[in-house]
Amino acid sequence: MDELVITTVVASWKLIINRLDERFGQLDDEQLQQQIAPNKNRLFYLLGHLTAVHDRMLPMLGIGERLHPELDEAYLTNPDRTISDPLPASELKKAWSEVNRAITSAVEGFSVADWLKKHSAVSEEDFSQNPTRNRLAVFLNRTNHASFHTGQIVLAK
Amino acid sequence: MDELVITTVVASWKLIINRLDERFGQLDDEQLQQQIAPNKNRLFYLLGHLTAVHDRMLPMLGIGERLHPELDEAYLTNPDRTISDPLPASELKKAWSEVNRAITSAVEGFSVADWLKKHSAVSEEDFSQNPTRNRLAVFLNRTNHASFHTGQIVLAK
Repeated sequence: MDELVITTVVASWKLIINRLDERFGQLDDEQLQQQIAPNKNRLFYLLGHLTAVHDRMLPMLGIGERLHPELDEAYLTNPDRTISDPLPASELKKAWSEVNRAITSAVEGFSVADWLKKHSAVSEEDFSQNPTRNRLAVFLNRTNHASFHTGQIVLAK
Repeated sequence: MDELVITTVVASWKLIINRLDERFGQLDDEQLQQQIAPNKNRLFYLLGHLTAVHDRMLPMLGIGERLHPELDEAYLTNPDRTISDPLPASELKKAWSEVNRAITSAVEGFSVADWLKKHSAVSEEDFSQNPTRNRLAVFLNRTNHASFHTGQIVLAK
């Protein structure tokens, strides 16, 4: 029964990632330079941002070291169009797939106990006071975050 | 342990709903008439749309009858600006809160077994072949849907 709960949660993540894969996959380099609305983020920036945020999930969920810390300055620390893109579109798309593959394959092996472990960005003390600050909470939060930006990405043609 | 998984899932829903409550709460009637981007949906439409979609969760999750089926024509069946708004802003805001309150208070009483029951829009046969088509899947899907539109709502000033 526990397992079915977890399978359902992971299926929800996969649905969002597949939707983004499809959307980004259709776009060539020039189309990725479009902004989602006048004076708003480029699609390219959002692809970089989502890749960087998901890359940070690897240590947060205890899966492993980060694969692409070189994306942080351009896509996490700074707003769009202030730092030049560190990777060309083809490599950024590869990084996006690589990071999500690492997450999905690791979490598919998580037991319920694994999901309820503390994530690495919360202290032992805070976690003992609030056990919902677990890996599952990070995973759900990041699934919502990806949905949030999907709502923006679909606005571009 | 099961319970903590469920508490974490419900906390994720509450976070998104609270964020939307805050955002919609700040906007007066005129501000709700803004579009999220040129020629895109009005905030008012998205408030109606989210209320209608959440209202449909009540029967889908076996919680009860719908409270606001009068919203469907304007906010589910038709695109923005084709049907006149059936409720003024103040009443639509009330409906939004009422529907979410009904959902949150009901799901807080769900056991793990309740979450894994089939939702009302899937047949017994399809459900027996795919038990992930349960109430939890609907709830996660709607949380992602609300996040998706939140990403659009924040684009308006």
